[in-house]
This record gives sequence, structure tokens and C-alpha cells, in this order.
Amino acid sequence: MRRFVIIGQTASASGDFSLDDLPSTSGRLDVLLRVLRAALLVSNGLRRDVQVYLVLRGGVADSQVLRVDGGTAKFLRPDERSLATLIQKTLRAAPRNASHFVEVRPGLALRAGDLPEVLEEAAGAPCFMLDEAGQDIREQAFAADDAWFFLGDQLGFDPVSVALLEARACQRLSIGPVSLHTDDVVTLVSNELDRRFSAPHGA
Amino acid sequence: MRRFVIIGQTASASGDFSLDDLPSTSGRLDVLLRVLRAALLVSNGLRRDVQVYLVLRGGVADSQVLRVDGGTAKFLRPDERSLATLIQKTLRAAPRNASHFVEVRPGLALRAGDLPEVLEEAAGAPCFMLDEAGQDIREQAFAADDAWFFLGDQLGFDPVSVALLEARACQRLSIGPVSLHTDDVVTLVSNELDRRFSAPHGA
Repeated sequence: MRRFVIIGQTASASGDFSLDDLPSTSGRLDVLLRVLRAALLVSNGLRRDVQVYLVLRGGVADSQVLRVDGGTAKFLRPDERSLATLIQKTLRAAPRNASHFVEVRPGLALRAGDLPEVLEEAAGAPCFMLDEAGQDIREQAFAADDAWFFLGDQLGFDPVSVALLEARACQRLSIGPVSLHTDDVVTLVSNELDRRFSAPHGA
Repeated sequence: MRRFVIIGQTASASGDFSLDDLPSTSGRLDVLLRVLRAALLVSNGLRRDVQVYLVLRGGVADSQVLRVDGGTAKFLRPDERSLATLIQKTLRAAPRNASHFVEVRPGLALRAGDLPEVLEEAAGAPCFMLDEAGQDIREQAFAADDAWFFLGDQLGFDPVSVALLEARACQRLSIGPVSLHTDDVVTLVSNELDRRFSAPHGA
């Protein structure tokens, strides 16, 4: 299982945003929606072996973590408004303050928490943080397609998150010479893992 | 100059679509909007040395070609609705049947035409088509960062376009073992060229 964890420093942890103006009303949840598409959707389908964790710290509510499981998710469409509608319904329907993941819609589960709770789930697994100062991902060995990748949002990582990831000994990886949007970074990580672990076309 | 040309077999050539339901009302213009973001937007800015050509064949109007120039474009934001609003205004304001590119907004120009007109502009330049059966882009030599890359939309290439690109001796390139959305393909091509031609972080 491949996992992407995106830390949304401002992204709304409640469903209180306007579908007509996501960037201004959702704390840039739009950034995280584009990551969902990049991580989970391919031509004609879903990546069944990928999970995405969105850490939602924005708005008046306490932090929540939304987990989207490509193995069981349904009705994921690539356009931003469809994804925003789905996430809004999920956030509005979810119980508040759940101490473990509660599946609200097929493949979409929510819990109270933040990065420490996600790191608990990742205990013992290979762990990487995407960072411009890291080693080139093309030079990185991967024993299997089961690593956890942690990414910042449009603001990058906050210092507390960096400290937590460093304490966990996450290795820093970079994807190239140009600073890119988080969804592009996910696309590049996915491609590198596909090249190592996926069978070629028609095989 | 790096150029991406996306052939939108169904994407609306007029501004007659609903911002609230792009996939159903715009002939999947949403696919092409995501390509615009992937090709032109990076962290904190625009790629100034990139142009994107969207071939718009959908709707009742004749085909049009929209050119977006990263060197002069303004007000490009990454979220899909903002991009859709900008393109809709551009399509509505443009003169119909222009026989050459007319700049309608900063960096956004429109003309009547289709793939043959774009290929005329590309005369003499290196030309590639993205195709699963192509050579791995990582194995491809690039003399300079001035090639033209032609991509299909969610339907792939139509046979007439393939014939035109083959007549032009465009080389086929592939990006990896998994079939991806067109915007992800653009991200991967961009990264490969960045690795060849861009200075590293901080250099």
C-alpha cells in the first residue's frame, strides 16, 4: 500500500465553505483536492493500492484527518467541484471528535486528530518527507511499494510537523530542480514508484 | 520555448458552458484546464518559457485554438473554477473566425483553426507525441528546451490527428507503465525537461 499524507495548515476541517469560491472560503482546500486527484485517479479508474490522508487544520473546528482509500472509494471524479462536493458532504455528515476513523462514505473515513495520530498508523513503515533539500527520488532505493510520503501544502511544512517527521526519522526526498505544486509532486512520486513496481502496458 | 498542444476532441470552442458543472456542459474542458495548470503554474509563479495550445473542437462552433503564453499571461490561478472563468470570458470576447491569433486578454490569444494551423507554427521544430507505445522519455535525447509536445485528451488521439503528427514525423514518447490523465503526463514531461535544462534549487 502506497500512502500520501498532506498537511493542510489552513484547509477547512468543517464543511463550511462555498463551492463557488474554494480558494477564498475553504482555506485552500482546493490544493488538497488536486492532490486527491493526482494520487488516486488514473485513466479509466482508481489506484486501488493507494490511500491519501488529508490533515485538515483550518477553520474554527479542531483538526481532523480525512482518509481516502482507493481500494474502496466510489464516485471519485477528477474535476475539482465534484471532489469538493464529496468532501463537503463527508465533513458535514461525520461525527465530531471521533477518536478513531469512522467511514462516512464508501472509502472516505474521518477522525479527530493531526499528524501524531497519522504517524501512529505509520509506525514501523518506511517514511519519507518531500523536501527540496532532500535526496533525488530517482536515487532512492525502495524495498517495496508500501511507503508513507508526507507532503506540505501551499505553505510548505510548519516547524512542528518537521520536528515530528524528523523524530520519526523520515528521509527527505526531492523531485527535481523546480519548486512545484503539491499535486505535481505526488504525480512525480507516483510515477517513480510505478516505474519500480508496476507492470508495463499490456503486460 | 517549451510548447504543449492538447487536442480537445469534445472541449467547447465557445463560452457556452456552466461553471457549476464543467464536465457535463463543456465537453470536458475541465480536462484541458487541469493541463493549463500543470503546464504553466509552479510554486509562487508562472513558467515564463512555456506556451500551451488548446485545440477546441467541441460544441456547435467551428474549431478554435486557444494559446496561453506563460511569458505574458496574467491572473492565472490554479483552481479549476478560476481557470474556467478566465477561459469562458476569453472565448466570449474573442472575434470569431480569426485567421491568425488575436490576443484577447494578456497572454491569451485565439484563432480559428485546428491541428494543421498549429503544426504550421511548429514547422522546423522538434516534435513529439505522447503515446503509451512510445520510447521512454527518460531515454530520449533533447538538444534544447524548445520542443513541441502533442497530447490527446481523455479520449486519446483521433486517427486524423495521428496521421497528421506522423506525416510531420513526430516521435512517440511514453512516460511510464501506467496510463495517466493528460495533466499528469504534462507534469512528467515538464519534470524531465526541468532535470535536463533547469538550474537546481538555489543555483
